[in-house]
Amino acid sequence: MATAGDDRRPKYQRIADTLRESIRSGEYGPGDRLPGENDLMATHGVARMTARQALSVLRDEGVAEARKGAGVFVREFRPLRRRGIQRLAQQQWGNGRSVWAVDIEDRSLEVDRVAVSEEAAPEGVAAVLDLADGETVCVRRRRFVLDGKPVLLATSYLPAALVAGSAITQEDTGKGGTYARLAELGHGPVHFREEIRSRMPSKGEADQLGMAAGTPVIVICRTAFTDEGRAVEINEMKLDAASYVLEYDFDA
Amino acid sequence: MATAGDDRRPKYQRIADTLRESIRSGEYGPGDRLPGENDLMATHGVARMTARQALSVLRDEGVAEARKGAGVFVREFRPLRRRGIQRLAQQQWGNGRSVWAVDIEDRSLEVDRVAVSEEAAPEGVAAVLDLADGETVCVRRRRFVLDGKPVLLATSYLPAALVAGSAITQEDTGKGGTYARLAELGHGPVHFREEIRSRMPSKGEADQLGMAAGTPVIVICRTAFTDEGRAVEINEMKLDAASYVLEYDFDA
Repeated sequence: MATAGDDRRPKYQRIADTLRESIRSGEYGPGDRLPGENDLMATHGVARMTARQALSVLRDEGVAEARKGAGVFVREFRPLRRRGIQRLAQQQWGNGRSVWAVDIEDRSLEVDRVAVSEEAAPEGVAAVLDLADGETVCVRRRRFVLDGKPVLLATSYLPAALVAGSAITQEDTGKGGTYARLAELGHGPVHFREEIRSRMPSKGEADQLGMAAGTPVIVICRTAFTDEGRAVEINEMKLDAASYVLEYDFDA
Repeated sequence: MATAGDDRRPKYQRIADTLRESIRSGEYGPGDRLPGENDLMATHGVARMTARQALSVLRDEGVAEARKGAGVFVREFRPLRRRGIQRLAQQQWGNGRSVWAVDIEDRSLEVDRVAVSEEAAPEGVAAVLDLADGETVCVRRRRFVLDGKPVLLATSYLPAALVAGSAITQEDTGKGGTYARLAELGHGPVHFREEIRSRMPSKGEADQLGMAAGTPVIVICRTAFTDEGRAVEINEMKLDAASYVLEYDFDA
């Protein structure tokens, strides 16, 4: 994102950044009307097109929404921008921060319905984790609730023998979470694969996520690999598609 | 993927690779029944669990599907695995190959309904491409049809002034496509951002993609950036969610 000192930002971007900052600071709260095109033209001395572009940046980001004939308003619930690659950087969880900290900015996140158990490995999981017959998995289930809205269900599978006795088998995995604990066990992940699908939710998923009708789930299946190429965790996530924009940034 | 000489592959993976190869070679065609657990146990001298795992690998990849009580069959249409990062590597389009070549393997891809035009820039597009008031865009619309099934609608926007006179304004962009032409113009992309959303399709999208009811679209909005950080293309793609698995591989 452009920062205050970045003079190469186009005008509309600078205006959008200023507005976004005012929303973050609480000057404009959820449901508040933002300054309109005429207001922005007057305040910033710009053409209508520039004012319109500034507002459209916030709309495209899901921060604001246009209401016909009434103007542009701060969204009551704005989709979470999930930065697929940055959020899993080692300096993130390696420094005791949660992978989620990158996503949520100043928003309030609660993790509820945490359940940890040792179970027989589902077939596909056993195959990917390369478990021997009868080897069990540590299963971590939880739900993520953002600004009071459930947005994601996650189920992680780890080889039970690998994580036995560690905080991974506890409800609270501690600072930096599961990946920091895996690193302490000598099995820190260095590579990730995320597979993304989308489909309609089951009744149970729609209920748990409090989803509006006609909204799909995005299913992300992430596998974490050690530097020896061993798969040490599978995390199957179900996201309310209306609550998320997934972002992947990469070089050619 | 594991290769023939890779002895570290677990047994189930070797069996899955062999079966996959037989499907690729055409030994087993779409709709054919694959060898069952008992067959695999006898042929490869493995335990039932291993045979089951091998079949589940192909199922998870969407190559095969289980039919209750009847066995495991080669899928009539298997979802396309779209490798988000590898497919946009410069050695790909830089060598005259299409970005798609990575995805489709041995499958038959047709691009139809190609339409190229110069148009007024939609608001959000003008903002991201940083266009001046009234600057137009070159719009490239097309549909991708895989093995006879429409799977994706794409609309690319490029600054018209930037691409004027190049093959980008023609139906056939030539070897390596739009990105190779942009590189020749001195604006080759070095960085990409992909934003992924999912929602139900509009009537028009469902028609054009021949989608089954109750199937969402995945919307990918890709922006291509030059080494100066200039956005030179926006490609808005709509994918039949039933036809795709998106994959992103990256390091911690």
